[in-house]
Amino acid sequence: MNGLVKNGNVEKPNKYFDIKDKRDFLYHFGFGVDTLDIPAVFGDTKFVCTGGSPGRFKLYAEWFAKEANIPCSENLSRSDRFVIYKTGPVCWINHGMGTPSLSIMLVESFKLMHHAGVKNPTFIRLGTSGGVGVPPGTVVVSTEAMNAELGDTYVQIIAGKRIERPTQLDAALREALCEVGKEKSIPVETGKTMCADDFYEGQMRLDGYFCDYEEEDKYAFLRKLNALGVRNIEMESTCFASFTCRAGFQSAIVCVTLLNRMDGDQVQIAKEQYIEYEERPFRLVTAYIRKQTGI
Amino acid sequence: MNGLVKNGNVEKPNKYFDIKDKRDFLYHFGFGVDTLDIPAVFGDTKFVCTGGSPGRFKLYAEWFAKEANIPCSENLSRSDRFVIYKTGPVCWINHGMGTPSLSIMLVESFKLMHHAGVKNPTFIRLGTSGGVGVPPGTVVVSTEAMNAELGDTYVQIIAGKRIERPTQLDAALREALCEVGKEKSIPVETGKTMCADDFYEGQMRLDGYFCDYEEEDKYAFLRKLNALGVRNIEMESTCFASFTCRAGFQSAIVCVTLLNRMDGDQVQIAKEQYIEYEERPFRLVTAYIRKQTGI
Repeated sequence: MNGLVKNGNVEKPNKYFDIKDKRDFLYHFGFGVDTLDIPAVFGDTKFVCTGGSPGRFKLYAEWFAKEANIPCSENLSRSDRFVIYKTGPVCWINHGMGTPSLSIMLVESFKLMHHAGVKNPTFIRLGTSGGVGVPPGTVVVSTEAMNAELGDTYVQIIAGKRIERPTQLDAALREALCEVGKEKSIPVETGKTMCADDFYEGQMRLDGYFCDYEEEDKYAFLRKLNALGVRNIEMESTCFASFTCRAGFQSAIVCVTLLNRMDGDQVQIAKEQYIEYEERPFRLVTAYIRKQTGI
Repeated sequence: MNGLVKNGNVEKPNKYFDIKDKRDFLYHFGFGVDTLDIPAVFGDTKFVCTGGSPGRFKLYAEWFAKEANIPCSENLSRSDRFVIYKTGPVCWINHGMGTPSLSIMLVESFKLMHHAGVKNPTFIRLGTSGGVGVPPGTVVVSTEAMNAELGDTYVQIIAGKRIERPTQLDAALREALCEVGKEKSIPVETGKTMCADDFYEGQMRLDGYFCDYEEEDKYAFLRKLNALGVRNIEMESTCFASFTCRAGFQSAIVCVTLLNRMDGDQVQIAKEQYIEYEERPFRLVTAYIRKQTGI
């Protein structure tokens, strides 16, 4: 059940789309309706899993294929902007860093699903993040996304005008993911996710090149976020929640925290621990997907 | 001569930086002061050339090495977030798409130059863009960057508060680059560059998944931009201009236009023409660099 439909604001692919762009080319994926049989390759998609790093998403796809004993595609992207892997009903597409890069990946993924004839894909972001008052290694399943101005909206500027759209996420999917977390003994928390527009000043780090605030300002800000219900900070959640909501697609954000920002700014964990943390969103999400799809 | 110094607002690396982060790790480059002899590898840098695509920047580095008959490094990045190549005094680092991704690359590049002991590096962005009233293939050397709200500032949100910083670019460097363009018979224009936060709605494209504006709104917006002196649209210029200005580093933005947005939204040029267009910023910038450095 898609909890977002209740908003009644699902937007169909735009009216110019089918009239003007019969020969639509997905520029940042490097292929289009004229160069690839999109329904044949992507028509059976049920889940699109996404996250920042291209290397991690290649790895996730390979792990999933091995676990489910199904083949993993080659990189299906024909551009160097994103990677795309497919394992049965699951697409693995990285989105780079920040909402602008993610927005391109989402728009082209939505167009891809449209061209493929996929009706209700579920989108899940599996990411890394900085924790706010939770121990490193915690997997935060987001209730909603908060923008840098501390509003629960995604801010777009279109034709010079500011437009704000809601960022709530699907409750049923979140609860199902938390349930799987418990079964797998993965430390899971729910809470708001703050979306910053940069890694350093926007997250009040003290280790950037620029820093015109004081150490106590940083801690005051993090305490404020924590009091507002924020459990982690990353750089994509508002756009991800807003775009999937507009399209009427069920979605979730599942990010592991690599550090507790209350304790520091640099990620200081041993390589092995880092890898185990990076695996947690994958273990949680893929257990859910395998349960749902029976593969 | 660095025209930005006249602003008198050059910021030094932050006060916490040297106290707290003796063991500074450049997280998105995958190395730090403890894992690489940064002065030995990067100490002779004079220019940092940057742009979105990792593949294009590998190619640019290889072309430059071949032309100047000097070696090209392997990819020096130890993370999959960015690529870093070095050819003599020139670093080639890609920045991904959008200001958040660029902001990370710039902060870590500025920290890299600081650790390397490089005093006054010049930063040049070589990109692709959509033209506004100029023919495809035009190389726009930006006078300044305009944000999506049509102000000549870069908007940052720090601790929940909106901060705006100037985005003017170095006049002397711009004029020198235009001079080289003339010598090389490359079609060059100067003008403002608009920085959008997404590729589709933020640039009023009609071929995205979402589109709640009309075709005539798109043309009205593009005409308005053109009247304001905008010659091209991309997704990084405000942050690039503002950060290099704050650091007191001479900088320029040199983007080729792949289409005239007055005529369409999709890039529809033959592969060979595309490659020749992509070469233009490279040919212009490297001719300037070789003139300056004598290599």
